This record gives sequence, C-alpha cells and structure tokens, in this order.
Amino acid sequence: MKAQKIINEKQNEMNGVNVDELFNTIDSVKKAPVIAKFKFRANNQWIDGGHNRTTIRDFYGIQKDHRHEATFKLDADEPPLLLGTGKGPNPVEYLLTALAACVTTSLVYHAAAKGIMLKSVESRLEGDIDLQGFLGISKDVRKGYQEIRIYFKIDADVPEEQLEELVQLGPTYSPVFDSITKGVPVSVQLEK
Amino acid sequence: MKAQKIINEKQNEMNGVNVDELFNTIDSVKKAPVIAKFKFRANNQWIDGGHNRTTIRDFYGIQKDHRHEATFKLDADEPPLLLGTGKGPNPVEYLLTALAACVTTSLVYHAAAKGIMLKSVESRLEGDIDLQGFLGISKDVRKGYQEIRIYFKIDADVPEEQLEELVQLGPTYSPVFDSITKGVPVSVQLEK
Repeated sequence: MKAQKIINEKQNEMNGVNVDELFNTIDSVKKAPVIAKFKFRANNQWIDGGHNRTTIRDFYGIQKDHRHEATFKLDADEPPLLLGTGKGPNPVEYLLTALAACVTTSLVYHAAAKGIMLKSVESRLEGDIDLQGFLGISKDVRKGYQEIRIYFKIDADVPEEQLEELVQLGPTYSPVFDSITKGVPVSVQLEK
Repeated sequence: MKAQKIINEKQNEMNGVNVDELFNTIDSVKKAPVIAKFKFRANNQWIDGGHNRTTIRDFYGIQKDHRHEATFKLDADEPPLLLGTGKGPNPVEYLLTALAACVTTSLVYHAAAKGIMLKSVESRLEGDIDLQGFLGISKDVRKGYQEIRIYFKIDADVPEEQLEELVQLGPTYSPVFDSITKGVPVSVQLEK
C-alpha cells in the first residue's frame, strides 16, 4: 500500500476506514512483525440434527488476548430438504458468507489506502456442490465446492476502465480468498 | 453409508436426523445422480468500513430453486483493533464458523446412518493468520490461514476406543473441510 492524499482530511477517513490508523498499523508491523501474528477462535456446540451453534468470543493479536465487545452466536442448520429444521444458514452458506465478507473488506481497506473513494459495493456468489460426495455415493465426486463464482457491482470514484483493476484488490489481499483457493492444513483431534 | 438398525424406531430418528429419509435420499440420488447437483448462493452489501451484510435467501437442488423459509442476514465487521466497529464476527471468524458447523453436521449425519447415538458434541477451533500478508508488507507471508486446529469433545454410545474413529467421520465427509483443505477455484467478475 502507498500513502496517498486523503480526501476527508478532517477525519482522515476513506470508505469508513481510518487511513491514518491503517498506515500507523503498517509502520508498527514493519518495526515489530511479531505483532501481526493473530489467532482467531470459535467454539461450537451441537444442538440436534443439523442444528449447531458457534460462539465467537475472543482472539489473539499484538501479543495478547482480546475479548470482542459483544459475544457473537451463529446458528447453523440444514433446510428441511436436507433433513434439517432451517434454524440458520447451512455450513456451506457460511463459507460463502466468509468469502463475500472478506473479499469486500479487503477491497474496501485497500481502496482506502490508495485514496480511492467507493460509493457502493455489492456482490453475489454462487457455488456448486454435488451431494454424491457428502452422501458417500461416489468416491470420484469431491465433497466440497467444485467451483465458486463471485460477481461484483461497484460504484467508485475512478474512470470506468479502472474498475477492473479495482475489483481485483479484493481477491488479491483477502485472507479467506487465499485460504479457500490455495487450501489450509486443518488438524482434527479428540480432547479427553 | 450402510443401513443399520435404528434405535428410535418410533420416529426413525437418530441424533435428530430422520434416518429413513436419509436412506431414501441416498437411494434417490443413486437412481438419478443429477438431483444431487446443488448450487448455494449469497448476496453481500457493503455498509461502511469493515462492516458488510450477507443475505442468504435461496439455493438450487433436486433440479429446481428453493427459497429458505426464513431469509438470513449475517453482519460481518472487524473489531476496533482492526479498524472496524465490531458489529459482527469478522470474515475469517465466519470461515471458522463454516468449518465447525460442517464438520459437526457431517459427524452427526454419518453417525446417525451408522446407528451410533451421540450424546454431546463440542468443538473449539483456532487458526493462525499473519497480517503481514493482508497488509501487503511481505510477499513471503501468505494472506490466509497458515493452519487451523480443531479439538473435539464427544460423548457417544460407543466404547472409548472407538471415539477416535467416530471423530474422523466429520472431516471425512464434510464439504467445508474438503473445500478448505483441498482448495476451490474461485472466479471474480465485474458485472456492469
């Protein structure tokens, strides 16, 4: 990211992001990279059938634990068609939510750092899953998403021809996009 | 999955999953694999800064579109430490939510199919991210999760030594686990 002239100088804000703080953060991390090591956490409790609840309470960063101001509770369930009771989005819909939110936030923060004012950002996502995988019917069919497509509509203070470049800021910097497209090692252990 | 004797014969339910319906679904898919092709969808709207909202409304499966009984709205935001206003979990926390929910549901459904009664299933997840990646400070540091760890506590109607086998049903069949560990192609397009 390169510092550029901030439009809203009074608040040093661009796209709702405090750009002074963003550049201060970058400077601090350059001096002491250890503060950039974060750990994010979730707790899940099974309720019944396809219904379970995830609690998001705290995380680690800048060398210490932090508690969120609010504790977030997220219910997941399957729709009746997939033998659930529809008490929440299902897990693969939460995956699309993570991806949509992250690509958007990454676009917004990096546009702010470049001094590009966004007026609106909307996206729609669609992903293909063949349930033969999950149901254990065919070993040749993968259990996860085969492909995910993201379609953005962006209104921003740049010439039309720069919109293509702008939209790529999201996937270029997004931690969830990187995680999902490149894969992450995940270990599963039983705690006694 | 192999059919086994159902314990709760009155409702044909195990772990809150209607096992008759589950086996009927498997039989139907074996006869007409096309019905197993699903498309899941999400719409996202940027609000301000790190705050955006995902709407989950409909999906495609069994050769037609379905509307969820309720429309789900999921707010994502960054905590103040990451220059947000804390109005929701952040995107990488949503990714852990998707993973926790999916591994749990997969375990529950496949245990039900095997006739194994679960009493309780809890998990905690932790994932490591080095923000030097997102901030564009170092190209050698990946932007996404470097590793995710899941710790399960399970109480089930099986001998202690079979718990290790049981816990592996989750990651073995989970679509989100498969997506995150093996990676998914994601395309990003601008819509005019």
